[in-house]
Amino acid sequence: MCGVFGIFGHPEAANLTYLGLHALQHRGQESAGIVTSDGQQLFLHRGMGHVIDVFSNEQLAQLQGDSAIGHVRYATAGGSFLKNAQPIAVEYSRGSIALAHNGNLTNAEALHEQLEERGSIFQSAADTEVVIHLIAKSTQRLIEDRVADALSQVEGAYSLLLLSEQSLIAVRDPRGFRPLCLGRLPTKDGGAAWVLASEPTSFDLIGAKMIREVEPGEMLIIDAQGVHSRRPFLPAPKRMCIFEYVYFARPDSKLDGISVYEARKNLGRALARDHGVEADVVIPVPDSGVPATMGYAEQSGVPFELGLVRSHYIGRTFIEPQQSIRHFGVRLKLNPISDVLRGKRVVIVDDSIVRGTTSRKIVKMVRDAGAKEVHLRISSPPTNWPCYYGIDTPTRAELIAASHSVEEINQYVTSDTLAYLSLDAMIDAVLKGETPPPEVEPSLPGGAQRHLPLATGRDRFCHACFSGDYPVSFTPHPRQRQMRLRDL
Amino acid sequence: MCGVFGIFGHPEAANLTYLGLHALQHRGQESAGIVTSDGQQLFLHRGMGHVIDVFSNEQLAQLQGDSAIGHVRYATAGGSFLKNAQPIAVEYSRGSIALAHNGNLTNAEALHEQLEERGSIFQSAADTEVVIHLIAKSTQRLIEDRVADALSQVEGAYSLLLLSEQSLIAVRDPRGFRPLCLGRLPTKDGGAAWVLASEPTSFDLIGAKMIREVEPGEMLIIDAQGVHSRRPFLPAPKRMCIFEYVYFARPDSKLDGISVYEARKNLGRALARDHGVEADVVIPVPDSGVPATMGYAEQSGVPFELGLVRSHYIGRTFIEPQQSIRHFGVRLKLNPISDVLRGKRVVIVDDSIVRGTTSRKIVKMVRDAGAKEVHLRISSPPTNWPCYYGIDTPTRAELIAASHSVEEINQYVTSDTLAYLSLDAMIDAVLKGETPPPEVEPSLPGGAQRHLPLATGRDRFCHACFSGDYPVSFTPHPRQRQMRLRDL
Amino acid sequence: MCGVFGIFGHPEAANLTYLGLHALQHRGQESAGIVTSDGQQLFLHRGMGHVIDVFSNEQLAQLQGDSAIGHVRYATAGGSFLKNAQPIAVEYSRGSIALAHNGNLTNAEALHEQLEERGSIFQSAADTEVVIHLIAKSTQRLIEDRVADALSQVEGAYSLLLLSEQSLIAVRDPRGFRPLCLGRLPTKDGGAAWVLASEPTSFDLIGAKMIREVEPGEMLIIDAQGVHSRRPFLPAPKRMCIFEYVYFARPDSKLDGISVYEARKNLGRALARDHGVEADVVIPVPDSGVPATMGYAEQSGVPFELGLVRSHYIGRTFIEPQQSIRHFGVRLKLNPISDVLRGKRVVIVDDSIVRGTTSRKIVKMVRDAGAKEVHLRISSPPTNWPCYYGIDTPTRAELIAASHSVEEINQYVTSDTLAYLSLDAMIDAVLKGETPPPEVEPSLPGGAQRHLPLATGRDRFCHACFSGDYPVSFTPHPRQRQMRLRDL
Amino acid sequence: MCGVFGIFGHPEAANLTYLGLHALQHRGQESAGIVTSDGQQLFLHRGMGHVIDVFSNEQLAQLQGDSAIGHVRYATAGGSFLKNAQPIAVEYSRGSIALAHNGNLTNAEALHEQLEERGSIFQSAADTEVVIHLIAKSTQRLIEDRVADALSQVEGAYSLLLLSEQSLIAVRDPRGFRPLCLGRLPTKDGGAAWVLASEPTSFDLIGAKMIREVEPGEMLIIDAQGVHSRRPFLPAPKRMCIFEYVYFARPDSKLDGISVYEARKNLGRALARDHGVEADVVIPVPDSGVPATMGYAEQSGVPFELGLVRSHYIGRTFIEPQQSIRHFGVRLKLNPISDVLRGKRVVIVDDSIVRGTTSRKIVKMVRDAGAKEVHLRISSPPTNWPCYYGIDTPTRAELIAASHSVEEINQYVTSDTLAYLSLDAMIDAVLKGETPPPEVEPSLPGGAQRHLPLATGRDRFCHACFSGDYPVSFTPHPRQRQMRLRDL
Repeated sequence: MCGVFGIFGHPEAANLTYLGLHALQHRGQESAGIVTSDGQQLFLHRGMGHVIDVFSNEQLAQLQGDSAIGHVRYATAGGSFLKNAQPIAVEYSRGSIALAHNGNLTNAEALHEQLEERGSIFQSAADTEVVIHLIAKSTQRLIEDRVADALSQVEGAYSLLLLSEQSLIAVRDPRGFRPLCLGRLPTKDGGAAWVLASEPTSFDLIGAKMIREVEPGEMLIIDAQGVHSRRPFLPAPKRMCIFEYVYFARPDSKLDGISVYEARKNLGRALARDHGVEADVVIPVPDSGVPATMGYAEQSGVPFELGLVRSHYIGRTFIEPQQSIRHFGVRLKLNPISDVLRGKRVVIVDDSIVRGTTSRKIVKMVRDAGAKEVHLRISSPPTNWPCYYGIDTPTRAELIAASHSVEEINQYVTSDTLAYLSLDAMIDAVLKGETPPPEVEPSLPGGAQRHLPLATGRDRFCHACFSGDYPVSFTPHPRQRQMRLRDL
Repeated sequence: MCGVFGIFGHPEAANLTYLGLHALQHRGQESAGIVTSDGQQLFLHRGMGHVIDVFSNEQLAQLQGDSAIGHVRYATAGGSFLKNAQPIAVEYSRGSIALAHNGNLTNAEALHEQLEERGSIFQSAADTEVVIHLIAKSTQRLIEDRVADALSQVEGAYSLLLLSEQSLIAVRDPRGFRPLCLGRLPTKDGGAAWVLASEPTSFDLIGAKMIREVEPGEMLIIDAQGVHSRRPFLPAPKRMCIFEYVYFARPDSKLDGISVYEARKNLGRALARDHGVEADVVIPVPDSGVPATMGYAEQSGVPFELGLVRSHYIGRTFIEPQQSIRHFGVRLKLNPISDVLRGKRVVIVDDSIVRGTTSRKIVKMVRDAGAKEVHLRISSPPTNWPCYYGIDTPTRAELIAASHSVEEINQYVTSDTLAYLSLDAMIDAVLKGETPPPEVEPSLPGGAQRHLPLATGRDRFCHACFSGDYPVSFTPHPRQRQMRLRDL
Repeated sequence: MCGVFGIFGHPEAANLTYLGLHALQHRGQESAGIVTSDGQQLFLHRGMGHVIDVFSNEQLAQLQGDSAIGHVRYATAGGSFLKNAQPIAVEYSRGSIALAHNGNLTNAEALHEQLEERGSIFQSAADTEVVIHLIAKSTQRLIEDRVADALSQVEGAYSLLLLSEQSLIAVRDPRGFRPLCLGRLPTKDGGAAWVLASEPTSFDLIGAKMIREVEPGEMLIIDAQGVHSRRPFLPAPKRMCIFEYVYFARPDSKLDGISVYEARKNLGRALARDHGVEADVVIPVPDSGVPATMGYAEQSGVPFELGLVRSHYIGRTFIEPQQSIRHFGVRLKLNPISDVLRGKRVVIVDDSIVRGTTSRKIVKMVRDAGAKEVHLRISSPPTNWPCYYGIDTPTRAELIAASHSVEEINQYVTSDTLAYLSLDAMIDAVLKGETPPPEVEPSLPGGAQRHLPLATGRDRFCHACFSGDYPVSFTPHPRQRQMRLRDL
Repeated sequence: MCGVFGIFGHPEAANLTYLGLHALQHRGQESAGIVTSDGQQLFLHRGMGHVIDVFSNEQLAQLQGDSAIGHVRYATAGGSFLKNAQPIAVEYSRGSIALAHNGNLTNAEALHEQLEERGSIFQSAADTEVVIHLIAKSTQRLIEDRVADALSQVEGAYSLLLLSEQSLIAVRDPRGFRPLCLGRLPTKDGGAAWVLASEPTSFDLIGAKMIREVEPGEMLIIDAQGVHSRRPFLPAPKRMCIFEYVYFARPDSKLDGISVYEARKNLGRALARDHGVEADVVIPVPDSGVPATMGYAEQSGVPFELGLVRSHYIGRTFIEPQQSIRHFGVRLKLNPISDVLRGKRVVIVDDSIVRGTTSRKIVKMVRDAGAKEVHLRISSPPTNWPCYYGIDTPTRAELIAASHSVEEINQYVTSDTLAYLSLDAMIDAVLKGETPPPEVEPSLPGGAQRHLPLATGRDRFCHACFSGDYPVSFTPHPRQRQMRLRDL
């Protein structure tokens, strides 16, 4: 998982990108990077760690120019090395170009091999370097045609930002697996800069206004002439990742017209309706489980309590790789409040079970704190299949639900009862999170009249990790390419 | 505000102190330090920043020995310099000694001047260095007598841990302003180590068991012979800081027999009862306001919603001093969910108003997100007076409530209505958070039979910041000593 | 200027490369890097600064395998950025490959443009990336054929080391501008590792034995089968850089059969013979001028004194780029001893005058210390032309000798008299530094019988910077390619 | 060994101190520190490592004010920890004060114990903290009287600089073991700043003019009123450390009227005269041995050659503590030139033999390079006794000359012959280095008429390390105080 941010036409491009990335920090904490353009050349700085640690004021000042793109990264492939940090920036025949990518290409490995056979060299393990090679090798003249040419050869999930000396290009794959939003930020001189981000929370932070989503299959070219929209790809059914709503996106984001917060509350309501249980309290696994738990409480009448307190000095569950601390399991992150739990029948609401080990520790922790019964409720179906579209799930062999029944999982995690939401119930709940769209300006400068075409029904989402229904073909057991080069 | 942790008799003393400090990180993020003893000499490491950044595995390995004390610091005085980091460790006539201190001495300045007149030199601005000088100058022979002698000369709030080569000493001032807890951790060889911490959450993390509070005025001496309890000071009425319950302590802590979480829910219930208002939703200022908001919702029937989402990559409201980011105000930390707020009558629950500037920004943020009405409810009385006992409040001139009526504050923060809890209501609510004490072992090894003497009524707490009723005299306008030496 | 080191077949490959690079530190202090191979994959670490600062013990331990190449760099082009640090390592169709390069390609810019036109991307400004692209694009199957294919397209000066998973390849351009030596280091198991280095001082440090120079136009392929020598290029007259003897190489190196130390002493003798002057003392500009000054003193009978003392905490004259200190001119590096100079007629011996500014400061410093007369003697001819073969000289416009007569320079630097060595005298002096070669083993394992073909006469050297006689054509005013991408 | 620098009355006090310390870097490379005063308060920055690494431009800018003192340190006692870095700065009853110290107090341990008995605490192992305590405890009112009072209690070697808010005080112990020089630097406004430094090379670098030595037993008080000279101590015979001339000081320094360079040349001449030997070449152990070797060559007619080349990327022989590299012995620093040595009878000139291990390696290195005979000549007598006055020599047990005859040492180091200079010959040679003093201004502003009282004869020097004639009594086997506190 990654987050991207871009801005065009603002004198404080680097500073605003820094802030925009900060608001996307939950999407990746391994590395951060910014590339700016002053119209003549690109300026790049990247580093390992949180946005706040990677950039000093001095470095931001050196990132000159009024356009920029930025990236926060959580490793999907290639390991935790600086060279895999994004954006990637290179020189090629038409100048220089930088690329920030959120997603995963399902044919990256094949393209990588073909490119190498044609004489290309690779300095990183990132999909992004494949795309850059394809752009550089395109025989098209215009940068937007080169990008379209390159992307017509790739498959999978991508929400991309490209920065050249003169333009900023945003592209979302035809199915729109990953979100990408367009916004606008007034400048002091009465004009307005264009901004792009994985989630609209970035816009909130810098005071920009959400305009609309970049649509699946759409390419936006932003330059001195304004914004141009193109649709260079064959149309395909929209398949936005449903797990963004369940877990990944920030609750204050609205993606594709659906409020993440409302969707999560609905998931909890559905859990209570379909899998209610006699209980004294319902508690979330914080922070992601809070809205679903509120929905559960509201629907069921079981009082909502904070039975587990979270320490916020660590980071998200599956993101921090500090091995020396890991063996303390969930304890570094969660601590029970015994007075809330002692002698109670407790419902715990969580968003998913991956390997089962964390759930098992949480159940034990709650029981040790005095709970009389522990009922685990999951606001999504069993995670049965790996994601090939950008979420870093383990192999199928490691997914407990791929080889165990719900009852077997219940026994493993030692809960009294365990229930998952059904696929249909999850989809219904998320769809009900749809809220009236904000008033959109009738026309975008330089772009065509927009109709925000909300797809409908369950096919609006990718739910392959739950259903195995993969919208884009992929090599079933893709040999995870072993880098032959390790940059220490 | 600071946090302290200590352990005696465990082969992994440094590692456990590291974890214990991590669980106290909310009490101070400016610096962290650990001192260990191997029975012959002390080992010290300190640094600026979070616990997780100050210590590497290598450094923890160099902190040898089976006893340790640690400290996390938020500057109460003296500025953000390494030399002010604690513990402070020195050599003196009887060996070496280290000191970790939570609190504030009201006569430190006078003692500092007296000591200088008698020829003492100071390398830091910390109260702690005053105490160390007094210990070193004592004519008593035994370390515990020296400590008692030294502390009999100081006034104010202190929860202290001292480490010598052979012993660990814990002391809490006669009024018990700041918390300090005793616990026990089994060791692999069948024995048990003694642990001490500002809050029992530290014990939870390392698997230790809470035994009891160190009592106001009590000194515990822990050495190879076991634990000894002494009461070297004149008795004084207990005055635990009530703001620990309102804001400072972690909600999963129980201090003095009162559950912080329950106390906060009660504060919210009282707010709803005394200052209810017609509304569509009640939302917290996260994270500290969540339990009070839950109490408000429960009592009033107004639905609890998360109208503001908090970014956890920054830290607590009044702790992070990175000026370059500050001008973004609360935006870096809080973001509204418009769908929750649009067109609604909103109650916001917060714990206190200091200068009013943050509340004003939050009210504006909620209103900009579409709220029709904004009603601000504060789960404590107006903050009228500075704290001289360890909480870093600004001078009286900066406290908005010191010079403005509630209605004037309401106008300043631009809320539709504003209400504070009364002093009595706050005290009642906190007292109702009292829960049955855990079963205590009938006797502590080496100590006397314990009765946990729960004081009663409003005098059980220090509420000087609300009432101006200061339990310990102080210089009314203490010249904040200007260090004449700046360590860059 | 750069230095390269390589080793094949030693269990401590990384550690020995670290030491070998340390002995080459005088050839470049901007960045350092090492790549190792464990037979399966390559391991890379690079950083800015001195060898001793770039590598920690921990990092050396992670550089696994028994073959390695390393590089120290002084920027010849492309600026002081990490991405320009060498070795460069990439993946390509046949595996991974790393490259360390000393020299300068005269057609790099043209190749760069051709490669970009064919779709290549560039992440650095280094010539080395051009060579790697050519290797990756070669249609040959064997790595050695690919390298030969690639290098047949480049022109200029190069002493290259390449490391693949299975082999180490060393190549020296047909004219042999830059040195490259082969040595052998016994291993504990009775075998011997092969080592390569820019100068044999590297061998001395690690206890390896100098075998012979890699010959101009020769390619050595070292793998499990041993050493193979090939000559894939058209033969060309040997033109070893004569400035290596005058200034660049270490005095304890013997290059091409000529002792650098003896050559420098001969240069001083020739100066005394051709340009003697009545004087009381002769002093060097330390350290490089010491041997020439000794030769001058010996020939002339004028006493040798240390009239200038050098601080060794800075580095070589034209290497350290710390601007903030530079304005102190030569003072940070040189300090006069007044008692040696006061009232004396002083001869100063230096190796060259580039812009004249440093010489002017030195003359002034010596005169201010009391010298009655100051006579400057330069152990080479006027530096009239830029170097296009790897030495970082300024443009012709900045070379004082390109536009001023010797008498004009004398006036500018304010010496009483100034004299340079003539081209012929310099060449004669260097040639006289030839010493009997060490006993060479009659046959190299896996290689052909060697005759060390010492060229003779002035054509044995490249002296283009003095004579304008450039052995390899180049674009007269090569547009120094402006990177369009800046990595901060 | 340490170096000190001070300046009073210059707007760029911190920058000039930075440069002055750089010129004293040879006197200590473990840590560096600067304290400045702006007239109101002191500003301090210290760090481990070279001057150039400890201070950034930004930090220098924060060191405000127009007076400063600085220190470079090589550990004489107390280990390599930041807290032992100097200057030490504290607050005391009269304000703040900072202290930079070169030397060693022979009664520090006793004073330390007395102070602890009186209740003092210690945060470092440095003698300097003892002096600060004594100053703080003095009952005198004026700072200069307090300093005099404090120093009247200490014994041993000290050249001290003290900085208070308003004044800079320089003191040299009555015997003048360590050098300390006074200079003057014109300021832009037509005035002049006063500067103080361990060696006058510091003055050369910043363009200051040497005025005179601070005399043994003299105290200079520099404040807004000018310079005042006092002699608060009982007079004692002058005993300047003779090893400063033999090895420690820079050759471009003139100390006590004696040119270090001339002294070293005389030592070499004396060696040739007293211990000449048939030989083909004489070579120095660079760099310190060069002048003595030049003297030897001049006197004997044996040609001076550079048979050993020194790498300047490491540092002085006995200063760098990087253990991981040490086992390469002298190889990292010295490399032989075989062509100079092969088949020759070689005289090696070095300044001293401490343990004998380094000399043994050098002799072996020269012999392995082909030397037919190796004759070692030492430009001082056998090092028989430890130094208690500030040079970090090992214990007597480790000094090879303390337990071995010259012939035994000769056998151990494997030289063909070995000879030392006699004590008388060394003293005579150094005395002959005396040069006419520079013209001194007849009167110092604010000071008395000066006569530079050059002592005469062998008693002018401390030569205890050679003779065992210790000018100041000391505890024969001073228990090296074991710090009971380790700051990691």
